[in-house]
Amino acid sequence: MQITIIGASGYAGGELIRLLLAHQHTQINAATSRSLAGKNITSQHPHLMGLTDLRFTNPDISAIDCDIAFLAVPHTQAMEYVSPLLERGIKVIDLSADYRLLKEIYEETYGVVHTAYQEAPYGLCELHRNEIKEASLIANPGCFPTGATLAAAPLAKEASLVIYDSKSGVSGAGDNPSTTTHFPNVSDTLTAYKITTHRHLPEMRQELIKLGSRSACYFTPHLIPANRGILTTAHIILNEPMEQEEVLKRYHEFYKDEYFVRMQRPSLSYVRGSNFCDIMVEVQENRVVAVSAIDNLVKGAAGQAIQNMNIMCGYPEQTGLTQAGMSP
Amino acid sequence: MQITIIGASGYAGGELIRLLLAHQHTQINAATSRSLAGKNITSQHPHLMGLTDLRFTNPDISAIDCDIAFLAVPHTQAMEYVSPLLERGIKVIDLSADYRLLKEIYEETYGVVHTAYQEAPYGLCELHRNEIKEASLIANPGCFPTGATLAAAPLAKEASLVIYDSKSGVSGAGDNPSTTTHFPNVSDTLTAYKITTHRHLPEMRQELIKLGSRSACYFTPHLIPANRGILTTAHIILNEPMEQEEVLKRYHEFYKDEYFVRMQRPSLSYVRGSNFCDIMVEVQENRVVAVSAIDNLVKGAAGQAIQNMNIMCGYPEQTGLTQAGMSP
Amino acid sequence: MQITIIGASGYAGGELIRLLLAHQHTQINAATSRSLAGKNITSQHPHLMGLTDLRFTNPDISAIDCDIAFLAVPHTQAMEYVSPLLERGIKVIDLSADYRLLKEIYEETYGVVHTAYQEAPYGLCELHRNEIKEASLIANPGCFPTGATLAAAPLAKEASLVIYDSKSGVSGAGDNPSTTTHFPNVSDTLTAYKITTHRHLPEMRQELIKLGSRSACYFTPHLIPANRGILTTAHIILNEPMEQEEVLKRYHEFYKDEYFVRMQRPSLSYVRGSNFCDIMVEVQENRVVAVSAIDNLVKGAAGQAIQNMNIMCGYPEQTGLTQAGMSP
Amino acid sequence: MQITIIGASGYAGGELIRLLLAHQHTQINAATSRSLAGKNITSQHPHLMGLTDLRFTNPDISAIDCDIAFLAVPHTQAMEYVSPLLERGIKVIDLSADYRLLKEIYEETYGVVHTAYQEAPYGLCELHRNEIKEASLIANPGCFPTGATLAAAPLAKEASLVIYDSKSGVSGAGDNPSTTTHFPNVSDTLTAYKITTHRHLPEMRQELIKLGSRSACYFTPHLIPANRGILTTAHIILNEPMEQEEVLKRYHEFYKDEYFVRMQRPSLSYVRGSNFCDIMVEVQENRVVAVSAIDNLVKGAAGQAIQNMNIMCGYPEQTGLTQAGMSP
Repeated sequence: MQITIIGASGYAGGELIRLLLAHQHTQINAATSRSLAGKNITSQHPHLMGLTDLRFTNPDISAIDCDIAFLAVPHTQAMEYVSPLLERGIKVIDLSADYRLLKEIYEETYGVVHTAYQEAPYGLCELHRNEIKEASLIANPGCFPTGATLAAAPLAKEASLVIYDSKSGVSGAGDNPSTTTHFPNVSDTLTAYKITTHRHLPEMRQELIKLGSRSACYFTPHLIPANRGILTTAHIILNEPMEQEEVLKRYHEFYKDEYFVRMQRPSLSYVRGSNFCDIMVEVQENRVVAVSAIDNLVKGAAGQAIQNMNIMCGYPEQTGLTQAGMSP
Repeated sequence: MQITIIGASGYAGGELIRLLLAHQHTQINAATSRSLAGKNITSQHPHLMGLTDLRFTNPDISAIDCDIAFLAVPHTQAMEYVSPLLERGIKVIDLSADYRLLKEIYEETYGVVHTAYQEAPYGLCELHRNEIKEASLIANPGCFPTGATLAAAPLAKEASLVIYDSKSGVSGAGDNPSTTTHFPNVSDTLTAYKITTHRHLPEMRQELIKLGSRSACYFTPHLIPANRGILTTAHIILNEPMEQEEVLKRYHEFYKDEYFVRMQRPSLSYVRGSNFCDIMVEVQENRVVAVSAIDNLVKGAAGQAIQNMNIMCGYPEQTGLTQAGMSP
Repeated sequence: MQITIIGASGYAGGELIRLLLAHQHTQINAATSRSLAGKNITSQHPHLMGLTDLRFTNPDISAIDCDIAFLAVPHTQAMEYVSPLLERGIKVIDLSADYRLLKEIYEETYGVVHTAYQEAPYGLCELHRNEIKEASLIANPGCFPTGATLAAAPLAKEASLVIYDSKSGVSGAGDNPSTTTHFPNVSDTLTAYKITTHRHLPEMRQELIKLGSRSACYFTPHLIPANRGILTTAHIILNEPMEQEEVLKRYHEFYKDEYFVRMQRPSLSYVRGSNFCDIMVEVQENRVVAVSAIDNLVKGAAGQAIQNMNIMCGYPEQTGLTQAGMSP
Repeated sequence: MQITIIGASGYAGGELIRLLLAHQHTQINAATSRSLAGKNITSQHPHLMGLTDLRFTNPDISAIDCDIAFLAVPHTQAMEYVSPLLERGIKVIDLSADYRLLKEIYEETYGVVHTAYQEAPYGLCELHRNEIKEASLIANPGCFPTGATLAAAPLAKEASLVIYDSKSGVSGAGDNPSTTTHFPNVSDTLTAYKITTHRHLPEMRQELIKLGSRSACYFTPHLIPANRGILTTAHIILNEPMEQEEVLKRYHEFYKDEYFVRMQRPSLSYVRGSNFCDIMVEVQENRVVAVSAIDNLVKGAAGQAIQNMNIMCGYPEQTGLTQAGMSP
């Protein structure tokens, strides 16, 4: 199958290439970057040296010819690509936020007018597999909402309050240097940011609602001195007390057929570079603590995008995604 | 004033020496360590080379002769020193947990019988200054409860639920190597631990109650890849909604005379090596997020112990503790 | 092909499993650990959860039944396994130091008597491919000598002095906690160790000699705050000045057919988790600086062991080893 | 004594303020920053909150009124300040490179014409104390040359070859974000840079010559995932073999009266935040390895600048510089 990656210069683009090179059914026929067009992909992604001879091309929509297009462009830029690609029969997996939310919520959250809105399944595979199968456009979830929602989903209906306290590696901020990502401002320290205003909160609330929850929901992210990974500590207040055993049973039941969800004590290193989400859960009085770990660039971006592709194309869901976490 | 440090080989002991060497009114006349007796202090604390010629001595209670003794021994070992020292007119500042809790709660939490219980002020200086002035024994607070309680204190009475989500540097685990502190198990990763069972929770609950709170209170700590510092994100659910402006006013009012509490966006690096506690606060609906940062070894241990000493001895409270945070 | 890993609980063992699970021609039929026998492999290697159901077994030599055995046991313990395995027709790849050096040099370096010495090709694949093809026992090289030797090899004959200044991630010290690997002793700091006495120096000297070099050779390692990887800066003094262009040409020529050697600016992150060795080289007067980067657990241990296996078994050399470096 | 810091927004400026606030004889009457004029110093240096109320001012030469001016502006910008300040009787300590080298070497190295050249003592205090005492302008040394030269100085005359292999924390690159200092490009990795072309090499060569050395001298720096500190491994080839004991004796003799040089195993953490330089030395055949550690912002910049000030003003040399290293 022919694949084109639009916006291939960033971290998500690099991960798509890294993972698709190891996928037995895909061939990348183009990887675009306006600023790097003509240059070798390995000039931007030196870790791929020796594995690909591709060069970046310009993202000329009319020239794109593939079966599946991955959009790894910034929010508000993806919307211009979607309709033209779909019209030409190309399936689209959009890693930006442009199709994740209801139109009005998107416009309020991102402060722009959505000029090409349409509905698309929210590509959190474990929760929306059936819709994904039939779709030609997928809104690939945000990194924080992926780990957070998987942590709380089994108790969504029983919760009265869900507080997601998330800790993210710096690659989540992209590859563009800034004061925030300047090494001495991150290393050996820790900060909270956008502590009540992060744009991923509406996705989290939307997913809880779809799960039948009537819970209040809050979210505070932190920037940790690590490259990859998000650990989310979901503090869940239940409507009614529940025993540890019962809670555990629900989680095991909920995820019993899920290849990519593992019930074990999470550490970012166990999922590093992999598409797994590790979850543990403990009860204390009427609070439940559910902790999840994902690699933000894999299960939180490129890996889940490929998982969506596999579902859309009828491949076994784990195809090309069976790498173990890299630990240590 | 003559100072003896009992249990001077660990991180808290090392910090006591580092800080007391720069204190104009103190002289360390002995620093004990059973296992290192006879050796130079700098054999264990090479960063102090050139600044002290002291050698470790054995912790022989009958030979201790000083004005103030700091106990930096492990929990359950401090209790044997306190009475003999007090009887000889030596003031005692205990950095262990042995005198922080009510007897029965202590015994339940630490799983031992307290053989020498007595009441002592809880040395969270900003909250208990008056009691500390008169005391000859101080229970120096735990590192997590210090940062957590300072974050929530101004809203203690208005809260119905307080969840402390804390992130601690590895020095909090002490200087003893273990699987938990093995570099590859910490670096570039993140874990939650004792997510419902950490022994500092009773201290946190006790302090909220003393502040007149009727709030539920929970605590989950995390181990971050950093050497020093604790960032605590206090998720506070209020009984009644409150405006951002009003909340800010309360915090500024509450801490307006406190030298060591600074209302600014916290980052572990701003307090690194210093006795400051930085706090910020934001409101979202009926949730308040209060974030605090301290250096666990200074405001969370040795620095606060010296702050307690200053109060007990009638020195200006910031004596010897005016070092800036070391950033970057 | 049936594979047994003897000593599978450590980092090298874990990497062998991780990589062999993705190798199309191999099946791990046993992974031994004396202390963990009976336990799931994932109890020790949680990152492999979901990918294998194997349990550790006891390393009972008489029960080992496989085509290839990897020895990932400590130095001085491998020698007892080799002969019995070879006698039963099992090919052996020894990741320890036991067969890397001449007998007398080994005994002097490791301070033990070698009770089962025999010759074996030194498995630095790029230099000894032909011998490896025919062998049934391979001495898999040390991590430092691999990166160092590849950096200097093209100029071995022209050098009068080679100083290897190497910087290693902490996983090189193994998974056993110690004061050296205690997080606060490594993070945000740097140390040199065994600055004239590291046991890998004899391997480096031996390889230079095999390359026809008459150069003096020295080695100083450093421990850096990183999990994986070795960057070696080879300071090479030439007998005769050479132009930058000529030096570059020699390196490109020397490695032109080598899949795993890439001539590009090295960074540990570009080779992280991969079997690649990246090299750059620059000339200044009669000094050449050649810098190489490898992943110590892959090209420096498990990956090169599998590369050796591929050569011994006639598989394409890169089989199962085409993973890109994981960057960021 | 009144102090003005010209260029106070960067790391060196921040360190000058941090250290001078604790210096008993100084008062900072102005701290300039063109871009931040009017803003609180703590807006840029939040770690100083509570310790100073100063605001940045414009660097208007005619308005500068002080006893000592520290220039912490970029290379090539310091030269415009020096003459006007000296003419008004203000002593100047220049942290830039503008007065460190002979005019022609400076111009070649930095690629500019020096428009206001004059001679100034090179402020490596341990080597040039007598000249510094009499001077009104000091060229404060570069960070790399400070640690490197102190490592090799005692053997300068006996060396035929000195190779400095240095490893620097990221704060050495300043506080300006760049691709080089982007967290994911530094953390958990390591790179060499300017491996034959770093501009600090001429300073190193100049100092060796002043010490009477006829040695060849090379320098290769590396960027390590740490905030502060430089570890320099000096590989010294001697003209004649020397015993370990003799070498040690020379170092101890050379530094026996130096407060800031400590003969002990170096680790960046032991000197973190302090003005100390730790050195160890070992002999192997006719190679000597001398390893030094400094804090690049203190002994490598602001601290040494204050040490120079103390010498110029006749204060005890360690005044205001007796802080211990901060470990862990």
